Amino acid sequence: GTLVTMDPKRSIFMQDLWIKDHVIHKIGKNLILSLDRQNSTYTCIDATGCWGLPGFIQTHVHLCQTLFRNHAEDLELLDWLQKKIWPFEAKLTPAALFLSASLGIAELLKSATTTILDMGTLHHTDELFQSAKISGIRYFGGKAMMDRGESFPLIEDTQASLDETQRLIETWHQKENGRLRYALAPRFALSCSQKLLKACVDLSKKHALIIHTHASENKLECKIVHEQTGKDTIHYLNDLGLCQTKSSFAHGVWLKEDEIQILSDTQTKLTHCPSSNLKLASGIADIPKWLQANICVSLGADGAPCNNTLNIFQEMRLAALIQKPLYGARALSAQTCVEMATLYGAKALGMEQTLGSLESGKLADVVVIQQNELSQLPNIPDDPYTALVYATSPHCVKDVIVHGKILVHQYKLCSLDEKKLISQMRGLSQV
Amino acid sequence: GTLVTMDPKRSIFMQDLWIKDHVIHKIGKNLILSLDRQNSTYTCIDATGCWGLPGFIQTHVHLCQTLFRNHAEDLELLDWLQKKIWPFEAKLTPAALFLSASLGIAELLKSATTTILDMGTLHHTDELFQSAKISGIRYFGGKAMMDRGESFPLIEDTQASLDETQRLIETWHQKENGRLRYALAPRFALSCSQKLLKACVDLSKKHALIIHTHASENKLECKIVHEQTGKDTIHYLNDLGLCQTKSSFAHGVWLKEDEIQILSDTQTKLTHCPSSNLKLASGIADIPKWLQANICVSLGADGAPCNNTLNIFQEMRLAALIQKPLYGARALSAQTCVEMATLYGAKALGMEQTLGSLESGKLADVVVIQQNELSQLPNIPDDPYTALVYATSPHCVKDVIVHGKILVHQYKLCSLDEKKLISQMRGLSQV
Repeated sequence: GTLVTMDPKRSIFMQDLWIKDHVIHKIGKNLILSLDRQNSTYTCIDATGCWGLPGFIQTHVHLCQTLFRNHAEDLELLDWLQKKIWPFEAKLTPAALFLSASLGIAELLKSATTTILDMGTLHHTDELFQSAKISGIRYFGGKAMMDRGESFPLIEDTQASLDETQRLIETWHQKENGRLRYALAPRFALSCSQKLLKACVDLSKKHALIIHTHASENKLECKIVHEQTGKDTIHYLNDLGLCQTKSSFAHGVWLKEDEIQILSDTQTKLTHCPSSNLKLASGIADIPKWLQANICVSLGADGAPCNNTLNIFQEMRLAALIQKPLYGARALSAQTCVEMATLYGAKALGMEQTLGSLESGKLADVVVIQQNELSQLPNIPDDPYTALVYATSPHCVKDVIVHGKILVHQYKLCSLDEKKLISQMRGLSQV
Repeated sequence: GTLVTMDPKRSIFMQDLWIKDHVIHKIGKNLILSLDRQNSTYTCIDATGCWGLPGFIQTHVHLCQTLFRNHAEDLELLDWLQKKIWPFEAKLTPAALFLSASLGIAELLKSATTTILDMGTLHHTDELFQSAKISGIRYFGGKAMMDRGESFPLIEDTQASLDETQRLIETWHQKENGRLRYALAPRFALSCSQKLLKACVDLSKKHALIIHTHASENKLECKIVHEQTGKDTIHYLNDLGLCQTKSSFAHGVWLKEDEIQILSDTQTKLTHCPSSNLKLASGIADIPKWLQANICVSLGADGAPCNNTLNIFQEMRLAALIQKPLYGARALSAQTCVEMATLYGAKALGMEQTLGSLESGKLADVVVIQQNELSQLPNIPDDPYTALVYATSPHCVKDVIVHGKILVHQYKLCSLDEKKLISQMRGLSQV
């Protein structure tokens, strides 16, 4: 197949890719011949008529919300949270949360997303890690932390939140050969006390953890933050030490110029969620301005109930399309969108040395995507990005390998039982 | 399966649908039992776990451009036409045009679009009708008419354009039991002389034909129309008689208030092309305002090179999403988007009595769509619209019936040979 490597030269070529253990061992011509000569045993994935790409990375999802898909329509952010999402989350049993995560991961893997930065709910966070462990996805996640605000019954004591976080870090961080990592998840400024936010900064430094939060998503949210703190959101978060190279903020629709400058200066990462920003009527984030300020911008589908899919192709396409009326037809090229979904996603997670491109020595997260569907043709060999972004959909995803393990083979999930998950979900929704 | 009828009550129920010849004969419970009792022979399509819907209608496509997909990126309308599309169209041989149409129709049928309003290129229009005839799609189309402007070599003499149009009307209008209909297609104000436009109005009246054109798509286009005519586009077209109940204008991104009023007063139809409007950086059309002015608004994917798919699900989703930042989360409900893609499409074509909903006596254009994919679940039985618009994709389309004939069965095209089309396209692109 054609390898779309995303390496520094953005090389695109027809070569073999050899995976040994969980690492890309070698990329080159006729590697199979040399393996045959050595009489090695190996599994061969045929990528004829396909692209091979680094697995896609989404840096803002909520697996705990998959069960709420199609059940929270036509609301803006704060209403959507207070009337629907928080009450739903509060009711999740451990079994339901495990199922919600597994359904979300099944959809993500089948659509070529191999790494996620996930925000849990308050409770039962072990279930999320357990699901990630079993399914084989590369997982950064953590419990949502919420110690203030109008979210009863989804609220907790500050110290209890920190204690549970500490326990989860010890239980799950760097487990499964580093495939699972803990990420601190203070929900957003309105849900967190200053004490909690400062403690997150300390924990981030102590354990080298990502801080994952929402910021400047909705106009009303920004107004309330300003009323409560006397500051714009990014100034407030920066004064508490949250703007730093290991922090990843989702949305950023209402960022002002000086806030963008702070994020640039502090190397804070931003996640663009174009579907969610439109669906919750939040607005259109100014991605060309962020990129011009040299901010690392990656993509995320957010949760199922504000999208309503977890499909990276949809996010790449929409990211490209919605900038063009304002910035012109050249704005945000298809190639830039693929970079946001691979390289910049890796960088947002501090993994640019080991993820985000097909290069020997990097972790073996590889996806094989059909390039010969009716809706993709004709395409241009030198420019796979256009067809990938504008004309490719999840059902083109043929094989998915994470950490050297085949998780989707010939369009079918291997690590999870899709039919069983769906029947379990049916059982649950009849309760 | 669940019938999402789109009837005046928007009934949704689990019943059987009986097709006899090319018409919906009856909708009711246990129709199969009564057929069995009569010892009739029939074909039964199992719609368990699926929705049955009226076939989707797209009122603005360019089948002649399917071969240019992925080959005209990152350009605004006038550059896109002059540098890419018109030179491409000028080179189309009859065989290439037939192939382009067949590839487009194959994609449309597989994604549940059963009726299209198509604009051809200048030449070889018989090939389009021939392809529509063979494939079984319900087709409204006609040759593009262009007798002035900077489109050399894609330009023709006024009388030659009218003579060819007259010949095509006689050859193809109302053929195949009414499944093929001629639609007059003056390209846009900048490509047509006043004489040509007036002649189209006369032909429309004489033969009761749809007039299909582009209007107010791009800001620069509107400026040039004003420079050349001293009028805003809709005033200009209205003064020539083009604003009338049988006219269907695509795009309308830059319509002013008084122009919207004219379109409303004259019952002129508008087609919204959200993907194309974003991709060519034209802008976001003001659909809530159009609907409030009581204008009939339907949807269209436009051509493959400005989208880059012909996928009605994409257009419904995008139509809903892009209005929300301006008008709030309730703007353009999922149900309204499905109505635009069915009922309003039928009305735009003057076919509201015979198409657009599942009701006995209407033409048998029916699609069966899977509702149990991972990315659709859980969904709400009473509200299929949300999952259809936000979480359904072409690969969920199981069966497609047009004019009583099964064209897609169990996800596979029956009337066209998909593999052969793709291999013919490959042969062509190597020339």
